[in-house]
Amino acid sequence: MALIIKNGTIVTAKDTYQGDLLINGERIELIGLNIPTAENDTVIDATGKYVFPGGVDVHTHFELPFMGTVSADDFETGSRAAICGGTTTFIDFVIPEKGKPLQQGLQSWKQKAAKAVADYGFHMAIVEYTAAVAEEIPAIIEQGITSFKCFMAYKNVFQVDDGQLLAVLKNAGQHGGLVSVHAENGDIIAMLTQQFLKENKVTPKYHWRAHPAIAEAEAVERAITLADFIGQPIYIVHLSSADGLEKVKAAVARGAHVIAETCPQYLLLHSDLYCQPGFEGAKYVMSPPIRPKDHLEKLWAGINKGYIQVVATDHCPFNFSGQKDMGEGDFSRIPNGIPAVGDRFNLLYTYGVVQKRISLNRFVDVVATAPAKIFGLYPKKGSIVVGGDADLVIFDPKATAKITAEHQNHNVDYSAFEGFALKGLPHTVLLRGKVAVREGIYVGEPGGGKFIPRTASGKEM
Amino acid sequence: MALIIKNGTIVTAKDTYQGDLLINGERIELIGLNIPTAENDTVIDATGKYVFPGGVDVHTHFELPFMGTVSADDFETGSRAAICGGTTTFIDFVIPEKGKPLQQGLQSWKQKAAKAVADYGFHMAIVEYTAAVAEEIPAIIEQGITSFKCFMAYKNVFQVDDGQLLAVLKNAGQHGGLVSVHAENGDIIAMLTQQFLKENKVTPKYHWRAHPAIAEAEAVERAITLADFIGQPIYIVHLSSADGLEKVKAAVARGAHVIAETCPQYLLLHSDLYCQPGFEGAKYVMSPPIRPKDHLEKLWAGINKGYIQVVATDHCPFNFSGQKDMGEGDFSRIPNGIPAVGDRFNLLYTYGVVQKRISLNRFVDVVATAPAKIFGLYPKKGSIVVGGDADLVIFDPKATAKITAEHQNHNVDYSAFEGFALKGLPHTVLLRGKVAVREGIYVGEPGGGKFIPRTASGKEM
Amino acid sequence: MALIIKNGTIVTAKDTYQGDLLINGERIELIGLNIPTAENDTVIDATGKYVFPGGVDVHTHFELPFMGTVSADDFETGSRAAICGGTTTFIDFVIPEKGKPLQQGLQSWKQKAAKAVADYGFHMAIVEYTAAVAEEIPAIIEQGITSFKCFMAYKNVFQVDDGQLLAVLKNAGQHGGLVSVHAENGDIIAMLTQQFLKENKVTPKYHWRAHPAIAEAEAVERAITLADFIGQPIYIVHLSSADGLEKVKAAVARGAHVIAETCPQYLLLHSDLYCQPGFEGAKYVMSPPIRPKDHLEKLWAGINKGYIQVVATDHCPFNFSGQKDMGEGDFSRIPNGIPAVGDRFNLLYTYGVVQKRISLNRFVDVVATAPAKIFGLYPKKGSIVVGGDADLVIFDPKATAKITAEHQNHNVDYSAFEGFALKGLPHTVLLRGKVAVREGIYVGEPGGGKFIPRTASGKEM
Amino acid sequence: MALIIKNGTIVTAKDTYQGDLLINGERIELIGLNIPTAENDTVIDATGKYVFPGGVDVHTHFELPFMGTVSADDFETGSRAAICGGTTTFIDFVIPEKGKPLQQGLQSWKQKAAKAVADYGFHMAIVEYTAAVAEEIPAIIEQGITSFKCFMAYKNVFQVDDGQLLAVLKNAGQHGGLVSVHAENGDIIAMLTQQFLKENKVTPKYHWRAHPAIAEAEAVERAITLADFIGQPIYIVHLSSADGLEKVKAAVARGAHVIAETCPQYLLLHSDLYCQPGFEGAKYVMSPPIRPKDHLEKLWAGINKGYIQVVATDHCPFNFSGQKDMGEGDFSRIPNGIPAVGDRFNLLYTYGVVQKRISLNRFVDVVATAPAKIFGLYPKKGSIVVGGDADLVIFDPKATAKITAEHQNHNVDYSAFEGFALKGLPHTVLLRGKVAVREGIYVGEPGGGKFIPRTASGKEM
Repeated sequence: MALIIKNGTIVTAKDTYQGDLLINGERIELIGLNIPTAENDTVIDATGKYVFPGGVDVHTHFELPFMGTVSADDFETGSRAAICGGTTTFIDFVIPEKGKPLQQGLQSWKQKAAKAVADYGFHMAIVEYTAAVAEEIPAIIEQGITSFKCFMAYKNVFQVDDGQLLAVLKNAGQHGGLVSVHAENGDIIAMLTQQFLKENKVTPKYHWRAHPAIAEAEAVERAITLADFIGQPIYIVHLSSADGLEKVKAAVARGAHVIAETCPQYLLLHSDLYCQPGFEGAKYVMSPPIRPKDHLEKLWAGINKGYIQVVATDHCPFNFSGQKDMGEGDFSRIPNGIPAVGDRFNLLYTYGVVQKRISLNRFVDVVATAPAKIFGLYPKKGSIVVGGDADLVIFDPKATAKITAEHQNHNVDYSAFEGFALKGLPHTVLLRGKVAVREGIYVGEPGGGKFIPRTASGKEM
Repeated sequence: MALIIKNGTIVTAKDTYQGDLLINGERIELIGLNIPTAENDTVIDATGKYVFPGGVDVHTHFELPFMGTVSADDFETGSRAAICGGTTTFIDFVIPEKGKPLQQGLQSWKQKAAKAVADYGFHMAIVEYTAAVAEEIPAIIEQGITSFKCFMAYKNVFQVDDGQLLAVLKNAGQHGGLVSVHAENGDIIAMLTQQFLKENKVTPKYHWRAHPAIAEAEAVERAITLADFIGQPIYIVHLSSADGLEKVKAAVARGAHVIAETCPQYLLLHSDLYCQPGFEGAKYVMSPPIRPKDHLEKLWAGINKGYIQVVATDHCPFNFSGQKDMGEGDFSRIPNGIPAVGDRFNLLYTYGVVQKRISLNRFVDVVATAPAKIFGLYPKKGSIVVGGDADLVIFDPKATAKITAEHQNHNVDYSAFEGFALKGLPHTVLLRGKVAVREGIYVGEPGGGKFIPRTASGKEM
Repeated sequence: MALIIKNGTIVTAKDTYQGDLLINGERIELIGLNIPTAENDTVIDATGKYVFPGGVDVHTHFELPFMGTVSADDFETGSRAAICGGTTTFIDFVIPEKGKPLQQGLQSWKQKAAKAVADYGFHMAIVEYTAAVAEEIPAIIEQGITSFKCFMAYKNVFQVDDGQLLAVLKNAGQHGGLVSVHAENGDIIAMLTQQFLKENKVTPKYHWRAHPAIAEAEAVERAITLADFIGQPIYIVHLSSADGLEKVKAAVARGAHVIAETCPQYLLLHSDLYCQPGFEGAKYVMSPPIRPKDHLEKLWAGINKGYIQVVATDHCPFNFSGQKDMGEGDFSRIPNGIPAVGDRFNLLYTYGVVQKRISLNRFVDVVATAPAKIFGLYPKKGSIVVGGDADLVIFDPKATAKITAEHQNHNVDYSAFEGFALKGLPHTVLLRGKVAVREGIYVGEPGGGKFIPRTASGKEM
Repeated sequence: MALIIKNGTIVTAKDTYQGDLLINGERIELIGLNIPTAENDTVIDATGKYVFPGGVDVHTHFELPFMGTVSADDFETGSRAAICGGTTTFIDFVIPEKGKPLQQGLQSWKQKAAKAVADYGFHMAIVEYTAAVAEEIPAIIEQGITSFKCFMAYKNVFQVDDGQLLAVLKNAGQHGGLVSVHAENGDIIAMLTQQFLKENKVTPKYHWRAHPAIAEAEAVERAITLADFIGQPIYIVHLSSADGLEKVKAAVARGAHVIAETCPQYLLLHSDLYCQPGFEGAKYVMSPPIRPKDHLEKLWAGINKGYIQVVATDHCPFNFSGQKDMGEGDFSRIPNGIPAVGDRFNLLYTYGVVQKRISLNRFVDVVATAPAKIFGLYPKKGSIVVGGDADLVIFDPKATAKITAEHQNHNVDYSAFEGFALKGLPHTVLLRGKVAVREGIYVGEPGGGKFIPRTASGKEM
C-alpha cells in the first residue's frame, strides 16, 4: 500500500544520485537502490526524470487588499498555480490593519487561507510599532509565525523609521523571530514620485524612474547595519539590483548575518519593458521595479556565489484590465505586483540550470531547501530525507512549454513572462504523499493544504 | 548478509535526519526508517550517534623526501592514523624530480602507496615547466590525476615564476585539471631569511618572521588574478592568514572562481608558540607558519561564510628529535611540517561544531563533501547516498579524549596539538562497507586502501 | 606708512619660502626678498618665525541657547579666544526657532555677533523644512549665508528625515548653497539613551555608549548617498570616528563629492576620559563623543591623505560647575560641547606638524585655506597672496606653553585639553592689517570683527 | 634692469590672484600689486593672461637606444619642443648597460644632455641588481640622481623579479632615493605576445591585446605591496588603466604611500586607434598601451580626486617611416613610444581646465608643482615664489591652435595627437629669468639648459 517512485535521479541541495523512494502515508520511508515492490504498492516510474523536493515560495500575497483593490489570486487559485508549478509550500504575509491587534490580522489570514491546496505558513508585517504591537510579538511567534516584515518604503503608508525597525529587530530576535525588510528608501521614492507627477510625467516608466537602484542599495546597507548592531540576522526580501547586491557582498565579507532573496522577475525581466508604448509597462509595475539589463547576470552570479540564498516570487497579481488601469494617468496608482508563483520553479530550472548559470543542486537549494531551513520548515519541508514530508516534484527535463497568459494557472489576465520558453516541467507533484498534480493538472482535493506552524526562523542556513 | 546501521543521526553536508543504513558489499543500498533486519545481517546500533561520511583529506605528504630527510609517516602509518581519525580517503602529492618524467614520479608514489589502509589519489606537483612536462600533462590527467600544484614559494627549489604558472593553468585547464598553489611570495621569504641569518637570528621564531602574512596575501591575489585571466579556477592550499582570506573574499565578490583550503593548525594554533624558549618552536615550523591569535576566528568565519570550502591537513611530520633538530642554529634548515592527518576530523568537530563556530552540516561539507566534489571523487566518496561507497564514520558525540604524542597514531615523537581536549570521537569507521576501525583501533587488513582515479577536478562545487 | 614683516618663513597651503610682506591698509601689497623699508613704515621682524595665514574656524557655537542653558562664550569672549589662538575668521551657526523665519534667526545672530573681535560669517541650520523655509533659502544665500546645516541626530529636536534632507540639498544646491550634516543616526542614539536611562545607567560614560561609532558611519554613508543622488556636494561636520572615515574613503574612491571636517578633540582625546570616576567625564560630553584611542591615528592619516580637508572646533563650552552639572544623574541632560576655538591652531601645529603627522603646508591648508575656499571666503581669507586680507599669524616655533583652564581665553571653568603641552605659539596676529594680538594678549579694539558675506560654497576645493 | 611681468593672473597649485612679478637675474624677487617700474626695466604685459610656473616633465626618453634604434628626439630637439610647449624642466632616464657601472651610464647621459635648452635631471634605471650595482647606489644619489626605476615588464630584457625590486627599494630608500616602477606583469605580456605571434596575429592591434589592463593592475598592486612592506614610498610611472587606478585607490585608503603618474595619451587617446586598417595603429604602440574609451574619464577623476599626482609624458618618439615600420609583420618589433613632451602642458590645459575636468590650481599642481616636490626640485622649480627660479609660462587663454605633425617641434614624422584643437597657449616662456620662447618660437641660446642635482625624492608631497 506504499507509493514507490522508481529509477529517478534524486536531487537535493547537495547530492545527486540514482535511486528509488518509498512513501508510506505522508512521509518518505525509504530511499534505496531497487526497492522491491509489493503487490498493493503504487509505482511511479521516474526513469529519465528528476525527483526534486517540493518548492517552497516564502513570498506571496494572495487575496491582499492593496492600493484600493485586492490581488487577483485568492488562496485557492494562487496555491493551485503554485503546486501545479512545483511549489508545495508557501508563506504569505499577514498585513494587519493599523491600530488593530496583530492577532486579528492573523485570524483573518487563516480564514482566507483555509481553501489553499498547498501547505502554508505566515509572516507577520509590522506596519507600525506601538506598545500594543510590542506586547503581541511573543505570542505571535508562539503560534508558529516566526518571521516579521518591516517596510522601509511606502512612506506614510507602511514605512517604519529606523527607531521602529530597531525595536522590532530587538523584540522579535529575543523570541526567535527573524525580521525581513522591504529595503527601499521610501523618502527618495516619495520625493521622485511627487516631482514626476508635478512635471506631468505619469506613465508607467516613471514608476521605474521613481525607484532608483540607489534607493534600494541605501536601504539594504542601512537595514544590515541596524540588524547587525542589534545582533540579529536580517532577511532582505526581493533584492532587485546589482547595487543592492554589492551592499550584501560587502556585509557578508565583514561578517554580518544577512540573508538575501530575489525573484524570477529580477533575474529575467529588465527595465526596457517599462519603455514600451502606451500603458503596457504597467504590467511590470512592482516595487522594487525590474532593473536595466546589466543587473540580471550579476544577480545570477549572486545566487551562484551564495550571496543570494532564496528565490521567491513576491507574487501579487492584478488584472491589466480593471486593476492595473486604475493608474492610467498616474503611475503612482497602478497596483504594484505581478503573477509569478506558478512560474518560479520552472523559470529557475530553465534559465538557471539548463542555461548553466547555476548547478542542479544550487537550484534545489534556492527554490526549496534554503527557504525551508531559514523559515523553520525544515526538515519537514525542503529536502528529500527519510522521515520528511513526501512533498515531491517528479520533473521531466525533456518536456517543453511556453508561458502564456491563456494557459497559466494564475487567476489574472496577463503574464509577465509571456512567451518565455520552458525546457523541463513537473510531471507529477506530491503533497505529503498524495499525488496533487498530474501532467500539469491539479488532481488533489479542495482545501488540501495545511497550515504549518514554523520553528524559529533565521537560526541557521 | 547485509550490514545495517540502525538508529543513527545521519548527517550530510546539507541534511540531518534519523534513519537506518543498509550496506551491501562496498556500497550503501538503502536508507530508511526502521529497515527490517534479516537473519544473517550484521547490525551496528548507532543510537545516540552521528553517522558521517568518511573524511577526505586532500593534502598529505607521506614518506616525502624533503629538506634532506623524509617525512616520518609512511603510507601505512599515515593512512592508519587517517582512518583511525575518521578520514577514509586522502590525496597525496607526487613531487617529481626535476628533469625526470612526471610519470616516473607517479609510479614511485604509487609503489609507496600500495601499503595504504585508506583509499587514495594523487595530485601532481609541477616544480619546473619544460616542454617535456607540458607534453606529459594530458596523459597524467587521463590516469585520474586531475589536479596539479605549483609553488609560489621555495625560491630556487620548487618556485615557479608567473610565466610557468600561467602555462600550467592553461595546459591543465584545457584537459580538465585543476591547479592548486602554495601561495606565498618566495622572494619576500628569501630576502627575509637571508637577512635574518646574516643578523644571526637563527631560532625557530625567525622562520615565522620570515614568512609574513603579506607574503601570503600578495601571492593569493596574484594567483587568483592569473587564473582568472586564463579563465580557470584556482585552488589555494593551506590558506593561513586573515590577510590572505581578505584577498579571497574580494575575489569571490568580483566573481572569480577561487577555492580555498585551510588546515586545523591555522584554525587552532598561533604564533606565540614560536616564541617559546629554546628550540621548542621548531615543532610548529611549517610553511606558511601559524599566525597571530587574531587570525584564528577570522579563518573560522571564512569557513562559516563559505569563503573557505575545504579543511585539509598538509600532514608532513618530522621527529623533533633527529629531524627537526637538523635546524638548530639555522631555522631555514628545520624540516617544514607537522603531523595532523589523524586529528583533523576530530579537531574540527570539537572546536568547530561543539564550540558553535560552524554547523554540523558545514562540518561534513568541509571535511568530506566539498573536497570529494572539488577533486572528482564524488559521489563515490564524500557523502551518504545510496550507490555511494560505504565509507562511514559512526561518531560518538559523548566520547572524550585528549590528544597526546604518546597515544597518537602518527609515527612521530610529538604532537602539535598536545593536550587538546576532544569531545566526540569516531566509534566505528567503515571503508567500502568493511569495518576498518573499532573504538579507535585499526581492525582492517593490511593494504586495504585502493587507488581511486579521479574525474575532472574543479568543475563544480 | 606701510607695515612690513621681514625675514619670515612664509607658509601657504602649498608653498614654503623666505620673504618679506608689505601690508598697506587692510591688504597684502607686496611679497618679496628684502623689501626696502621707508621711514614711516612699521617693521615686524619675523626672523626665525613662520608667517601663516590667519586661521579659519568654520564651526563655532557662541552664545548658543541649548539644552536649557546658553553656551558660555559669547561672541566677544569667544572671538577673542579665537584670535589670540591664531584664528582670525570664524563661521557660527544660526539655529533658528522652529516656526519662525530663518531671517529672524539671522538677525538675532547678527546682533549677538556685533561685538566680535574676529571676522565672521554664518551658516544657517535647517531644523525643519517647511514651505516657508523653502521659500526663504534663496534670499538667505543672497545675503552671503551660503551654507546650511541639517541634523541627522537629536531625534524630536533638530533631526530631519531623509525627505527633508533631500529637499534642502536640492533647494540650497540650486542656489549655490552647500549643505553640511551632523551625521549620526539619531534613532540609534535615542534607542540607546532610553534603554540606558531605563537601566539606571546615568553617568557620563553612557553618553559615549549611547553614541556608537556605527551610528556615525551609517549617517555618513546615507548623507553622502543622498547628496550624490541629488548631484550636490555634502560637507560632513565633526567627523569623529574611523568608522565614519571609512565611509568617506569609499565615497571618494567611487567619485562622490564629499568634504569632511574633524576637530582637535577627535584627534587628541579618547574615550577613556569618559570612564573616570565621578562626574569628571561630563567635561567631554559632546556629540559625537570622542572615540577609543585607536581611532585617533586613523583620523590623522585621513587628514594626511586628503580625505579630511578641514579641522574646525565645534566650540560650544559649558561650565563644569553650573552647566554641565545639570546632567548629574541623567547623562542625557549634560549640555553637549567643549571649549576649543582658542586651542585648535596651536594643537594642530604641535601634535600635527611637530609630531610629523602632517606637513607644514597641510597644516595651513586644513586650518585656513581649505575652509576659506570651501565656504566662499577665499581669496579674501585663507591664504597669503597679494590683494588678500592681511590676516596673518606670526608664529614662533620655539615658544612653548601648556594649556590650562586658568590661563585660557575661553570664558569657561575648565579645559578639555588641560595640561597639553604646546610647542610653537602665535607671537603676533594681524586682522586686516592691524595688530590684534601681541604675545598672546589681545590688543585690538572692541568689536573689531566684521561680518563677511560669503560667495558660493562648495564649488571648488 | 629687472624684468617685470605686469597684470597677470598668477596661478600656483593652490592660489589664484592678480599681481605683478619682478625678476632679478634668474630668480623671482617681488610679487606685488602694481609694482613700480624703473627706467631700465623690461616690462611684459600679462593683462588677460595667466602666469604659470614652468612645467616639469619627469618622464622623457631623449636619444634613447631602444629596440634596435634610437628615439627620434635628441636632447636638443626634445628639450626645445618641451620648452616651447611650456615645460622648462625635464627628467630623463639613464638606462645603463647591463654589466656596466651605473656611473658610466650617467656620464653618457650627461654628455648627450649638454645640448639641452631646458633644465634637466636624471633618474637611474636598475635593469639588473648585482652586488656592484648595490654598491654604486649611494654615490649616484649623492650626485643628485635621487630616483630609480625598475621594470616589472620587458621579460628577459629589463625586467627584474620581486627579489631585485625589494632590494632596490631597501637600498635606495635608505639613502633618500625614490623607486619608480613600470608596472606591468611582464610574464603575462610575454605569454600573450608569444601566443599571438604563433597564431600569426602580428598587426599593431595585438600589441594592445598583449598588454591587458589586468597585467598593469597586478603589477601595481604587487609593487605597492612590496614597497609598503619595505616601508618605502613607490612611484608608479605612466599609469594607464582604470584597473590600475583601482589598485592605487585601495592602497591610498589603507594608508600606503603610493604616488601615481599618468600621461596625456592615457587621458585622451583610446584603443580604437589600434584597430585602424593597415599599420596605422603602430603610431600608438607604446607600453603600457592606450586603453578602451571608458578608462579615460576614470583617470581624469583620479587626477581630480588626488589619486594621481603627476602628469608626465613618457616621451619616446620614433618615426613612423623608418622606425615604427621595423615592426611590420611583427608587432613585437615596433619600437614602443610616442612624441608628447611638447604637447603635455597645452593638452592638459585645454582638455583638463577648459573642459572643466580639473581646476586651474590642480592643473598647475600636476604639470609642475607636484613633480617638482616629489623629485627634489622644489622650491627652485615648480611654483611661483620669491626666491625661486623664474621659470614661468605667460599663457594666453584665448589663443588657439591645432596639433599637427607638420607644425610640431618634435623631431618626428607624425603626431599622436594629430588634429587635437588647443584653446590656450604659452605666449612667452622664461627659463631662469630669460625669455626662451616668444609666441611659440624658441628664442633662447643653444644649450641654455642646466643640469639640476636634486635633493631627496619622495619625502613629501
